[in-house]
Amino acid sequence: MGFLSSPLILTPLRNAFLCLYLPISNTQIMSAINQYIEDNRQRFLDELLELLRIPSVSANPAHAADMQRMAEATKRSLEAAGADKVEICSTPGYPIVYGEKIVDSSLPTILVYGHYDVQPPDPLDLWNSPPFEPVILKTAAHPDGAIYARGACDDKGQFYMHVKAFETMMKTNSLPCNVKFMIEGEEEVGSNNLGDFVKANKEKLKCDVILISDTGMIANDTPSIDCGLRGLSYLEVEVTGANRDLHSGVYGGAVANPINVLAKMIADMHDENGHITIPGFYDDVQELSAAEREEMNKAPFSLEAYKKDLAIDDVRGEKGYTTIERTGIRPTLDCNGIWGGYIGEGSKTVLPSKAFAKISMRLVPNQGTDKVTELFSNYFKSVAPKSVKVEVRPHHGGEPVVTPTDSRAYLAASAAMEQTFGKKPIPTRGGGSIPIVALFEKELKVKTVLMGFGLDSDALHSPNEHYGVFNYFQGIKTIPVFFEKYMKS
Amino acid sequence: MGFLSSPLILTPLRNAFLCLYLPISNTQIMSAINQYIEDNRQRFLDELLELLRIPSVSANPAHAADMQRMAEATKRSLEAAGADKVEICSTPGYPIVYGEKIVDSSLPTILVYGHYDVQPPDPLDLWNSPPFEPVILKTAAHPDGAIYARGACDDKGQFYMHVKAFETMMKTNSLPCNVKFMIEGEEEVGSNNLGDFVKANKEKLKCDVILISDTGMIANDTPSIDCGLRGLSYLEVEVTGANRDLHSGVYGGAVANPINVLAKMIADMHDENGHITIPGFYDDVQELSAAEREEMNKAPFSLEAYKKDLAIDDVRGEKGYTTIERTGIRPTLDCNGIWGGYIGEGSKTVLPSKAFAKISMRLVPNQGTDKVTELFSNYFKSVAPKSVKVEVRPHHGGEPVVTPTDSRAYLAASAAMEQTFGKKPIPTRGGGSIPIVALFEKELKVKTVLMGFGLDSDALHSPNEHYGVFNYFQGIKTIPVFFEKYMKS
Repeated sequence: MGFLSSPLILTPLRNAFLCLYLPISNTQIMSAINQYIEDNRQRFLDELLELLRIPSVSANPAHAADMQRMAEATKRSLEAAGADKVEICSTPGYPIVYGEKIVDSSLPTILVYGHYDVQPPDPLDLWNSPPFEPVILKTAAHPDGAIYARGACDDKGQFYMHVKAFETMMKTNSLPCNVKFMIEGEEEVGSNNLGDFVKANKEKLKCDVILISDTGMIANDTPSIDCGLRGLSYLEVEVTGANRDLHSGVYGGAVANPINVLAKMIADMHDENGHITIPGFYDDVQELSAAEREEMNKAPFSLEAYKKDLAIDDVRGEKGYTTIERTGIRPTLDCNGIWGGYIGEGSKTVLPSKAFAKISMRLVPNQGTDKVTELFSNYFKSVAPKSVKVEVRPHHGGEPVVTPTDSRAYLAASAAMEQTFGKKPIPTRGGGSIPIVALFEKELKVKTVLMGFGLDSDALHSPNEHYGVFNYFQGIKTIPVFFEKYMKS
Repeated sequence: MGFLSSPLILTPLRNAFLCLYLPISNTQIMSAINQYIEDNRQRFLDELLELLRIPSVSANPAHAADMQRMAEATKRSLEAAGADKVEICSTPGYPIVYGEKIVDSSLPTILVYGHYDVQPPDPLDLWNSPPFEPVILKTAAHPDGAIYARGACDDKGQFYMHVKAFETMMKTNSLPCNVKFMIEGEEEVGSNNLGDFVKANKEKLKCDVILISDTGMIANDTPSIDCGLRGLSYLEVEVTGANRDLHSGVYGGAVANPINVLAKMIADMHDENGHITIPGFYDDVQELSAAEREEMNKAPFSLEAYKKDLAIDDVRGEKGYTTIERTGIRPTLDCNGIWGGYIGEGSKTVLPSKAFAKISMRLVPNQGTDKVTELFSNYFKSVAPKSVKVEVRPHHGGEPVVTPTDSRAYLAASAAMEQTFGKKPIPTRGGGSIPIVALFEKELKVKTVLMGFGLDSDALHSPNEHYGVFNYFQGIKTIPVFFEKYMKS
């Protein structure tokens, strides 16, 4: 059975869109697909660069107009690729772009999720080129070149692979099932409005599997598929001492310094073994068996290479766990930002009134984000000394999730990557969070496959984020194979 | 003996400057002085406001031109008041403005020190009016109004009292001795070039006493004189984890987070009793006797009023010491600023590469700033975990100092304030640092009198810094009395 074997008999709708429609073999179709990608290589690249020029930073209200522009650009790209019913769906926050191609309602439907918003580019001074002026440079990890821009990998480069793979399947007459796109604009700020949208549009979003490319793999010669994502609880804390900034010479030593107090409160959240001290924090943590941990640690990993890549003399984490375990199956608590007092050039002998921190916890399966957020808040308030006032403001969260490795979709993704990479991908537990995965499972009762093509070294959320040109095209080539394998299985 | 009794017989030089010269009584002269101040009240105020409009922020190189403007304005003001040999003396940093009036070289000389630079105005958003657009508002502490502007109290308002008092003595023919002015532009950044200037100009700066108004008093109805200043050691620290910002989901828990590490290092610098844990830190601290401490604690102080003023539920400091002792005779360690990671709006799940803090220690007599700076640096480096790299950059320092309460100059200052306030001032130990005091003592072998007119509540170094109109004019009135008492004693 070739690529078109199934769709061939049920494509009355598709004929309207395709000039040429011939029964051809799997090899022929693969060849046609690859040829189409090759013929349009420069355009596929240019279109992505164009999207990367839009500074769609969801966290910063100053970029609201850019967010709208980006939603419109996403809509146009889906329409141009051949999607129907493309619309910009309003939410109380930034809109969600939806589009679909229903070839036959009795066929399975794959829902592609992605996000068009990006992380803030700060700190700007650490970028080697402007974050919204993409450039392609060759690197050791990317000898074919990598696209440097905020959002190159997370997630514009990755969601756009699906748009181009879809166009390719449409133009080569090889789309074997229905496909739906849901590209949101608030992933980087917690997907706050997605839950309501999903709840209100269950019929529209009905599907058999969700396919997401918003994760990474081990290396370009070591494909892997994420099958576990840590959840997230993110909060901002504010510690207030006196009602105004004071002269540290006049008041220092007698009035609580909110920076020193906050530092101590943060420090006290870990014990000497790197365990988190918040009471009840580990209560719901799903512990893996010794056998499972052994299996997990078989993934290729060189501590020396890891340290060299990061230029660190030592790793640091919870005692009794390997680096793979620390980032895969163990919850964490990290400060993502801290500020207070005088942070300009030179010196200022101020005893500040306030100090702030952004603190997030990565959660593992069975931990609940709301519960952990509450545990943190209660603990933080309870340990504050009487000499300060504290406020805790929850930002966004996301539930931890584990995706199955024995599902039809996972096996199709594994087979697709094996075909395009020449190597069977390794199932891994990733450290990031994609709240949508747990949400989908809860609301739509559908499992997700996380077929990501980024690399950990692509500097996601960092200055100089980039995405390999190889990875971009490898994704565009692998996605149609996934569609084929999924339909064949 | 009246004000003019001494100068009367030795003023050939002065006659050239004064239109009218008559032997008159102390009371007559006091009356003439007060009348002159009253007649010129609005101008004295307007001139200060004009100086406050110049944003002479020494810590920020962007204000270099403003610093030059301010030095020139200071020069013009001294010339207009009647000083001779006024010059802007270059240094490798910002210049020092010098001027003098030698009525007779055999008479004593009072050297007035002040500074024309100001603290940075940050955080700007907490100011109720722009920091360099002075406004006069009435407050509870200042029913006659207070001038709101950066530098209003520290130290433009206070050094300018001396300029106006000098003008008054000149115009009323009552300057009883020689006076020299040295107004520098780097006090707020550590007076780094003042030491060399003083060493190179010992003859020019030769004097019998140094008079400084750059400190405060307890309240407008409770005059006091600072007779001890804490020293200062100020450093900036930098903690580096990985060589780039990382995604906290992918790396969190396995790679040192420099914010968390810095927080712990800061926290560990105090023990549970508020003692500083840096080895050797207290070795040289001069301990006061029980009797001395008892005497010190007799100063009027209401803990309830103190807490209410600052809107705090509790004070916080070293166990075993009162608030007066904590700010007067005990060394401290405070973070003056901290920053790292994402500090913009919203959330960003970054595991930052770097975190920074500005940390200062207030030192008490017998502690040496260089030694403490070294103790801190060594300690900070020694306790850093292997998973991070740390850098320590000393900013500026200042030696702690105690001024005598039995000197001719102190007794003159005390008598002068007693005359103008109607109450004998209380000798106090202030918490701030004026590095020049120790420097003068070392290089010129001259003692200082710290006759300051600010209030602790004047928000020095804070948003909404202000200086009472009453305090400004009270200073202008008290200074000539000091000159008289000093010459009479």
